[in-house]
Amino acid sequence: MAKAIPTRDEDYSLWYNELVKKAGLAENSQVRGCMVIKPYGFAIWEKMQRQLDQMFKDTGHENAYFPLFIPKSFLSREADHVEGFAKECAVVTHYRLKTDEDKKGVVVDPDAKLEEELIVRPTSETVIWDSYKNWIQSYRDLPLKINQWANVVRWELRTRLFLRTAEFLWQEGHTAHATQQEAVEETEQMLGVYADFVENFMAVPVIKGVKTPSERFAGAVETYCIEAMMQDKKALQSGTSHFLGQNFAKAFNVTFASKEGKEEFVWGTSWGVSTRLMGALIMAHSDDDGLVLPPKLAPIQVVIVPIYKTDEELSKITEVVDKISSDLKANGISVKFDDRDTHKPGWKFAEYELKGVPARIAIGPRDLENGTLEIARRDTKEKSIVELENVLNYIKDLLDEMQKSIFNKALDFRNENTYEANSYDEFKELVEKGFVYAHWDGTDETEEKIKEETKATIRCIPLDQKKEDGKCVFSGNPSIGRVLFAKAY
Amino acid sequence: MAKAIPTRDEDYSLWYNELVKKAGLAENSQVRGCMVIKPYGFAIWEKMQRQLDQMFKDTGHENAYFPLFIPKSFLSREADHVEGFAKECAVVTHYRLKTDEDKKGVVVDPDAKLEEELIVRPTSETVIWDSYKNWIQSYRDLPLKINQWANVVRWELRTRLFLRTAEFLWQEGHTAHATQQEAVEETEQMLGVYADFVENFMAVPVIKGVKTPSERFAGAVETYCIEAMMQDKKALQSGTSHFLGQNFAKAFNVTFASKEGKEEFVWGTSWGVSTRLMGALIMAHSDDDGLVLPPKLAPIQVVIVPIYKTDEELSKITEVVDKISSDLKANGISVKFDDRDTHKPGWKFAEYELKGVPARIAIGPRDLENGTLEIARRDTKEKSIVELENVLNYIKDLLDEMQKSIFNKALDFRNENTYEANSYDEFKELVEKGFVYAHWDGTDETEEKIKEETKATIRCIPLDQKKEDGKCVFSGNPSIGRVLFAKAY
Repeated sequence: MAKAIPTRDEDYSLWYNELVKKAGLAENSQVRGCMVIKPYGFAIWEKMQRQLDQMFKDTGHENAYFPLFIPKSFLSREADHVEGFAKECAVVTHYRLKTDEDKKGVVVDPDAKLEEELIVRPTSETVIWDSYKNWIQSYRDLPLKINQWANVVRWELRTRLFLRTAEFLWQEGHTAHATQQEAVEETEQMLGVYADFVENFMAVPVIKGVKTPSERFAGAVETYCIEAMMQDKKALQSGTSHFLGQNFAKAFNVTFASKEGKEEFVWGTSWGVSTRLMGALIMAHSDDDGLVLPPKLAPIQVVIVPIYKTDEELSKITEVVDKISSDLKANGISVKFDDRDTHKPGWKFAEYELKGVPARIAIGPRDLENGTLEIARRDTKEKSIVELENVLNYIKDLLDEMQKSIFNKALDFRNENTYEANSYDEFKELVEKGFVYAHWDGTDETEEKIKEETKATIRCIPLDQKKEDGKCVFSGNPSIGRVLFAKAY
Repeated sequence: MAKAIPTRDEDYSLWYNELVKKAGLAENSQVRGCMVIKPYGFAIWEKMQRQLDQMFKDTGHENAYFPLFIPKSFLSREADHVEGFAKECAVVTHYRLKTDEDKKGVVVDPDAKLEEELIVRPTSETVIWDSYKNWIQSYRDLPLKINQWANVVRWELRTRLFLRTAEFLWQEGHTAHATQQEAVEETEQMLGVYADFVENFMAVPVIKGVKTPSERFAGAVETYCIEAMMQDKKALQSGTSHFLGQNFAKAFNVTFASKEGKEEFVWGTSWGVSTRLMGALIMAHSDDDGLVLPPKLAPIQVVIVPIYKTDEELSKITEVVDKISSDLKANGISVKFDDRDTHKPGWKFAEYELKGVPARIAIGPRDLENGTLEIARRDTKEKSIVELENVLNYIKDLLDEMQKSIFNKALDFRNENTYEANSYDEFKELVEKGFVYAHWDGTDETEEKIKEETKATIRCIPLDQKKEDGKCVFSGNPSIGRVLFAKAY
């Protein structure tokens, strides 16, 4: 019996929520806006973390850990930053509870009020740059390239599992460089790392670009981003990389003695991806029967379900399965043999479809006689009969093929739902149907008006933007190239 | 020039603090009681995490993630638990800041007061058991064996880097079982995992035992612990594993339908180790020149320092070093070649001694002529001349030997400083010199009095306690066996 979820056509938003819960990925907690990431969801996140962490290390970054709390005054140091982050945040004001007078519970002890309130970090630029001030003296200390895996809190009013939660898990890279050029190169490199990861591991195609000034990170000179299309044709920002200029260096007085002996402010970057990527992964590929996971991120890549009536049959099957399992495992493929007698094969099939296990092997007495077994792939649901001696090679090829195929399907889908608009009427019609490339006059006002009227935002100015003279789809004023519009998460 | 640290004899406590800072492990932040874990320190912690995580998975545990915040009322549910943890904690009372009237900064917005205050988790039993209530219905859902890697906050007044900080990193395992026996077995199994890790990876010998009632975890029926001796002969509790009985199940109403169809409360355990282990690692082995790291946890296991005058010499050395490095790396040994021209070899030697790199290779033109090089081991400072073709095998053996030797040295030290006391006068004298096994009458009063008068506490009732009739060293009342007393961190 599958735990049925609504179809995407019926209610895409409900489909997503129910899928996240029923596949055992996450659930809401009793703490407003905070989720519990359940073991199966966390296993996927761990695979993402391991891969990203390796990519950060391969590009010369080291991990460190900075405090959860930020003194309130730190936030005000960088003028734009405080505007962006001081608003909705969790504020620690006291450091002790005491027993209630009626002895029934505990109350905040009014005597234990902090002199200066502490903010639970919404992002760590301020507390990190405050440390960098002491770590950087000379050009020999640069570049400083540090990453942190951490939890952060932003007090969101409307939350959705993985996509927008009060507390979320993420990584935040914070680097310091001697020159502007080096910092810009770092910003772009890390955008490239994110794009590589999202495309080649999550199998989600992305568009690389820069944000418009109004959408920049609070405190950044330039914000780069990657944008992906979900199955409801809305965009999801999947990672950002910020060139900070000397803004935080000036706010926290971080200078270095250059090779020439001059005292200069350092140049900074920061970049992050979060558990929001889980939302992108789920929404980009899954179907009405459940998750579809790209093999590279699937905690279980192959599940084996025995079809049997008697213990003797099960024991013969198990013998064959043990051999197959150990071959697969020796090749780095994760395998689960589900021989529970508490559930029927049909129930198990539905369960592993819901959980998005890429390949399912079914094997019964008839198969043993024939020296074959049945392999079903999760994405297309196609089944094949495979000779026992070919299983390892078949599975290896299948997982590779699925990884590519899932990406290509998402890419085709995005291409089919991407348009160019050349008039505002056309724009309004097309932006209901997907991504729209259109000319924009470069002003905040036009961006804001279009958002008000259509709910579509400029997702990015694509890095590969073709320079072409045109007229703004809204104002008719001159434009030098098309930007990407879409409704977004 | 080494960054000199005080000697252990001069001032053990200052030696520790300066070592932690100068070796680049951690430093105090501007946030009271919160530390910054610097890249080198974090790299050691990462190695610990990876190993422990694998050991948890090998014993059937899965990772998950639960909220940072705990509603105040949750804490009061379990009567002992609230006594233990509600006192010194960080309390979130508001969820918004606003611009100050004078526009100079931000202030807490009084309109954004939470209806119920949130506590930053000091430990997660309450929020986790609140989830388990929904996850467990039948015996088929048991055992539930989950671990979480997380940050926690306890508002300590006196803090020391790694040993006692307001925020620290840890893992907390939380399991639920159908029977008392299974839960007790889990508690003991995880104590065994901790002992295995601390002895075989950290190279620190431990004594396994149970805490006295007064030292139990708040909410536990029994607290198991491992205790290690530091070089100042004080004890450091290095990990605890708690049998929770049905206390949290009852507090959060977590029941299951048994195989026989009866509704029963589940049995629980919790267990944790933290960044405090870093303190134990540092204090157990290091010397007046810096860190001594057991090879299994050293981020850099081998450092190679070239001794040269000319670029031509360096280039010849580099050729040989490249070959050695790739051999070592292919065998899973981490290597750093420090060919910086900004520092002299002597400076580098001191630097890597400070950082505790287990093996240091020095190689110059004379060595090339002779087909040899010099290898120095960090723990004993012994140097050997080794033929080039033997380097890989020599290093492999050396690292194995050092891992054992560092453990044995710590074990010998503990044995030399462990005593039995048979009178209170003897006890008072010996407890100034190390660990003391002595008879105790089993009462809180005696334990408390001894603590008041000598500052020594009962570290544990050893699991391998020999049953022998005796008289309490303090009260003269009957005792059934000796317990372990020591001054402790």
